[in-house]
Amino acid sequence: MGRSKSVSDLPKSCCISSSVVVHCQQFAVPHFGCAVHVKEDGNEDIPGEGIACQQVHVSWDKPLTKLRLLGIAWSWSISMSAQQFWAAPGAQPGFCRVLNLHWRSAPSTLPPTGVRQGERLNSHLGSGLWEPGNEEGGPDFRLALVQLHVSPVKSGNLQRACGLVREAAAQGANVVALPECFNSPYGTQYFKEYAEKIPGESTQKLSEVAKECSIYLIGGSIPEEDGGKLYNTCTVFGPDGAMLAKHRKVHLFDINIPGKIQFKESETLSPGNSFSMFDTSYCKVGLGICYDIRFAEMAQIYGQKGCQLLIYPGAFNLTTGPAHWELLQRGRAVDNQVYVATVSPARDEKASYVAWGHSTVVNPWGEVIAKAGAEETVVYTDIDLKKLAEIRQQLPILSQKRGDLYAVEMKK
Amino acid sequence: MGRSKSVSDLPKSCCISSSVVVHCQQFAVPHFGCAVHVKEDGNEDIPGEGIACQQVHVSWDKPLTKLRLLGIAWSWSISMSAQQFWAAPGAQPGFCRVLNLHWRSAPSTLPPTGVRQGERLNSHLGSGLWEPGNEEGGPDFRLALVQLHVSPVKSGNLQRACGLVREAAAQGANVVALPECFNSPYGTQYFKEYAEKIPGESTQKLSEVAKECSIYLIGGSIPEEDGGKLYNTCTVFGPDGAMLAKHRKVHLFDINIPGKIQFKESETLSPGNSFSMFDTSYCKVGLGICYDIRFAEMAQIYGQKGCQLLIYPGAFNLTTGPAHWELLQRGRAVDNQVYVATVSPARDEKASYVAWGHSTVVNPWGEVIAKAGAEETVVYTDIDLKKLAEIRQQLPILSQKRGDLYAVEMKK
Repeated sequence: MGRSKSVSDLPKSCCISSSVVVHCQQFAVPHFGCAVHVKEDGNEDIPGEGIACQQVHVSWDKPLTKLRLLGIAWSWSISMSAQQFWAAPGAQPGFCRVLNLHWRSAPSTLPPTGVRQGERLNSHLGSGLWEPGNEEGGPDFRLALVQLHVSPVKSGNLQRACGLVREAAAQGANVVALPECFNSPYGTQYFKEYAEKIPGESTQKLSEVAKECSIYLIGGSIPEEDGGKLYNTCTVFGPDGAMLAKHRKVHLFDINIPGKIQFKESETLSPGNSFSMFDTSYCKVGLGICYDIRFAEMAQIYGQKGCQLLIYPGAFNLTTGPAHWELLQRGRAVDNQVYVATVSPARDEKASYVAWGHSTVVNPWGEVIAKAGAEETVVYTDIDLKKLAEIRQQLPILSQKRGDLYAVEMKK
Repeated sequence: MGRSKSVSDLPKSCCISSSVVVHCQQFAVPHFGCAVHVKEDGNEDIPGEGIACQQVHVSWDKPLTKLRLLGIAWSWSISMSAQQFWAAPGAQPGFCRVLNLHWRSAPSTLPPTGVRQGERLNSHLGSGLWEPGNEEGGPDFRLALVQLHVSPVKSGNLQRACGLVREAAAQGANVVALPECFNSPYGTQYFKEYAEKIPGESTQKLSEVAKECSIYLIGGSIPEEDGGKLYNTCTVFGPDGAMLAKHRKVHLFDINIPGKIQFKESETLSPGNSFSMFDTSYCKVGLGICYDIRFAEMAQIYGQKGCQLLIYPGAFNLTTGPAHWELLQRGRAVDNQVYVATVSPARDEKASYVAWGHSTVVNPWGEVIAKAGAEETVVYTDIDLKKLAEIRQQLPILSQKRGDLYAVEMKK
């Protein structure tokens, strides 16, 4: 039948470049599925599972690293994804990367014909790979940004947020993001009153709605209380309702522009102390909150670790918003060749802190591909990881980094 | 004497408002000349000069902005030029700025009280203007970018470049920069033929003109031959003619955007292997050439090392120019809180490689403060290091870096 033929054809076309080869062989298997995960970090993380593993052979040569993946799993109703092959800074020209080799089946479908839309196998560097249903050229997933109007009533904020998440899912969104401080007004005077443990009321609701809608939900941020300290924290939930990531804002917003904007988060908040990434079935995602976006190193490290999408719930103001909100996103996108999304609360002129709004998505070429105004709205974008791969091939700055001269290093 | 009195009156009559941006009145002085230049891409260039100018009236209408200049400067042997009025992208009606109100003495006149060349008058959004003998609040130095038209005739290029450098110095520039590949057409087929040793004919001329004009001269770049290898190399000369820096392009321009632009510098050039910084009497400067600007790490390291100005001679093309030229500069500027200048050759539609032009200066807030069009021109900007210090104090991202989590490291 057609599908198994496609699968068995896959290996033959799975060649990534002259020197970096992903070579998948012997997929002459009738019922499909396999899972390949390759994680970079100088080491390998290769789970293989399923029935009747044949051979998937991925070899990747670099001057400093040799990454070799052997073995595979498959079975019908399983997925194959080889994600985030990634070349370290300093990789020489000629070394390339597989960004997203993704092929998954629906989570719980049984029939061999039940491979639903969205399953695909992407490869970097232009090699055309298998696309069920001939989906070549289509987007990989739909991202929705919920630019919520945040009021002082927490229960109202939660209800409104969940309603808009459901609306976004109904519009086909696979990944939905809420803004910074979505359940509370933004301001040091509010954080303590609105703070919750995690899990707690707000994150429980996020988990439920993520599961109900079978989406990935980036829960903006909420004031979190833990051990007597307060944090500005983003939680992420998967389609099964499980929490996939918890990011505490690393860089606290302490600025003083006389006559324009003064703010000192560190008066009440404590900073997070780690990077936060999570895997989706589409791509790996890196998280930051608002002021975090000003720190290029964070995005650089997320890029190195294989993130193809960075999401920053944030609330810039009427001074820094027009000056830098879009510029910073476009800069992060073009420098790291990733998609970047920011999610702001809607503007409320009566609030003590007036947010800029303008939730935005930028593609890896640095182009704004979706942007809200100031009002409450949901912004939709289709994310095309093939475009990302194409840009990285055409303008191969990631492999042209001079690792002999410099490096951006993650310290913990 | 009357002159200085009138001069000090000038600020009081300069105001910037919603529609009348610069309003200089009551310069009814009998003897002297003035020149007012207002330039903007595709807009107006309105020089007016002569004796006893009463009124020069410049109006500049754009869809969102109205710029109106009334009045004039005077003094014997003094000229006034108001250059580069510029509205920020997205500027709202009523929000304009005067970037450079420059007032210099004529080269050949003999004022007994000697207003010296380079004295200037600046205003930003109506803030204080220059007063003789009280330069507080004034700029630190004047930067000129020579957007040279490069022809296939090397001797002509050298002569023309030196002529424009002299002109820039006569306009009060303290630091002058030439574009990438200023003595040769840009293209792998030309590099060998035009290449020189350093020192050699071209760099000797640069040294001489720097000394003659008593300026810092960033000599764009030339194809350099050394030990049988070719490099794309920038030399810098100080006011005494000594060579202060030699930067060989570190990141070679190898890109392939099908149907748009293919280029492979590495076919003929070898890469440099080091960072290049130099000190001036104003500030420390970091150097890159063209494609180097795409690599954020280089600018980050220059920033860490104390550079306050980054200069990139470069020649983006008609694909990458509109997409990324300004974005990259603004990104480097805002991330590292430095001034960033790029210097392109003028556009020559008949050349095998058509340069984007648009030599630009961006301030540490990420604002474009000077920008050329496509044609041959010299762009002037006054660099204010106090503004840089102020921005770093207001938005202290450099001291808020999380060195416990990440670092950008220089490896050699």
